Amino acid sequence: MVLLHSPVTNRRGELVTTAVTNMDIHDIARTSRTYGVRSYFLVTPIRVQHAMVSKILTHWSTEQSKAYHPDRFEALELVRVAADFEEVINSIKQATGAQKPFVVLTDARETPQSMTYPELRKFIDSEPDGEPVVLVFGTGWGVSDRFYPAVDRILAPVHGPEGSQYNHLSVRSAVAIILDRLLSRQTEMG
Amino acid sequence: MVLLHSPVTNRRGELVTTAVTNMDIHDIARTSRTYGVRSYFLVTPIRVQHAMVSKILTHWSTEQSKAYHPDRFEALELVRVAADFEEVINSIKQATGAQKPFVVLTDARETPQSMTYPELRKFIDSEPDGEPVVLVFGTGWGVSDRFYPAVDRILAPVHGPEGSQYNHLSVRSAVAIILDRLLSRQTEMG
Repeated sequence: MVLLHSPVTNRRGELVTTAVTNMDIHDIARTSRTYGVRSYFLVTPIRVQHAMVSKILTHWSTEQSKAYHPDRFEALELVRVAADFEEVINSIKQATGAQKPFVVLTDARETPQSMTYPELRKFIDSEPDGEPVVLVFGTGWGVSDRFYPAVDRILAPVHGPEGSQYNHLSVRSAVAIILDRLLSRQTEMG
Repeated sequence: MVLLHSPVTNRRGELVTTAVTNMDIHDIARTSRTYGVRSYFLVTPIRVQHAMVSKILTHWSTEQSKAYHPDRFEALELVRVAADFEEVINSIKQATGAQKPFVVLTDARETPQSMTYPELRKFIDSEPDGEPVVLVFGTGWGVSDRFYPAVDRILAPVHGPEGSQYNHLSVRSAVAIILDRLLSRQTEMG
């Protein structure tokens, strides 16, 4: 799991860096842990935010926190911080010995040739120890097209029921829905 | 959609009232709007929190906010506040003319005879204009058993993949996953 705070765009399509939020750290770490994600990377070039994330992680990893909130610690253990996406890729290569992870970008917009959920689910299931899959989520008004050269496939957007046009989910909700679609146990859906 | 702040329990199983949070209002309203939910009720007996919610809703419904953030307004339009669950039921009866809504409680714990996702999905699909379905989520450490007399069925908990034991999702993430399981368009899952 990767949450990009840069390069992303604002409402006017301008290139910006968004702020890391405490809620994005916690909610997405807990969802990641639930679905067996190996690492959750927050990407931001702003060094003072790296320090902020470290401070939060340190707070939740004291002996007292571990005893009182073991589930928080278990989730936050997955959190990493990186200055840019290249650092993420290098870190994954190093941890897994993989040549090149398979990078899937999520996007709320429709794109041609997007990957479907069953397609990606099958890909993940078929290569559990092979090519690691990196699932990238954006913040702000979405990932900048500057990031596209790093992307192997774009995942189809999440829609509500037939006829519903609204798709302004929070990134926290989108992560939850997408990980459930890709990684839930099949028996639960009957 | 109902988010109960009372009657819920704390970590020691004691009856408490939790605080309404800004993030729960926004994230769950946006998810509700995406999945075509008709109303999203926040239930708390604390009157000063009713005033706080009203203030937030008023802020997002000014002409300026509507023009600048139309998607936030569209989501927050669904938000209602009630002092207790009886008020929710009366409000739904009044709005729909239904005799009695069908109340489904979500719970992170396993319970005997819980309703499966396909079962509830089928129920919702088969009665679009019949018995309105009320989906109840708790805060804190879960809904108190004092609430059980109001419940028709308990929905099965959300699990991660086969073998994963961790299920400490935020309520915001649980709402997103459960609404997607019950209301997403079937074509997206292939």
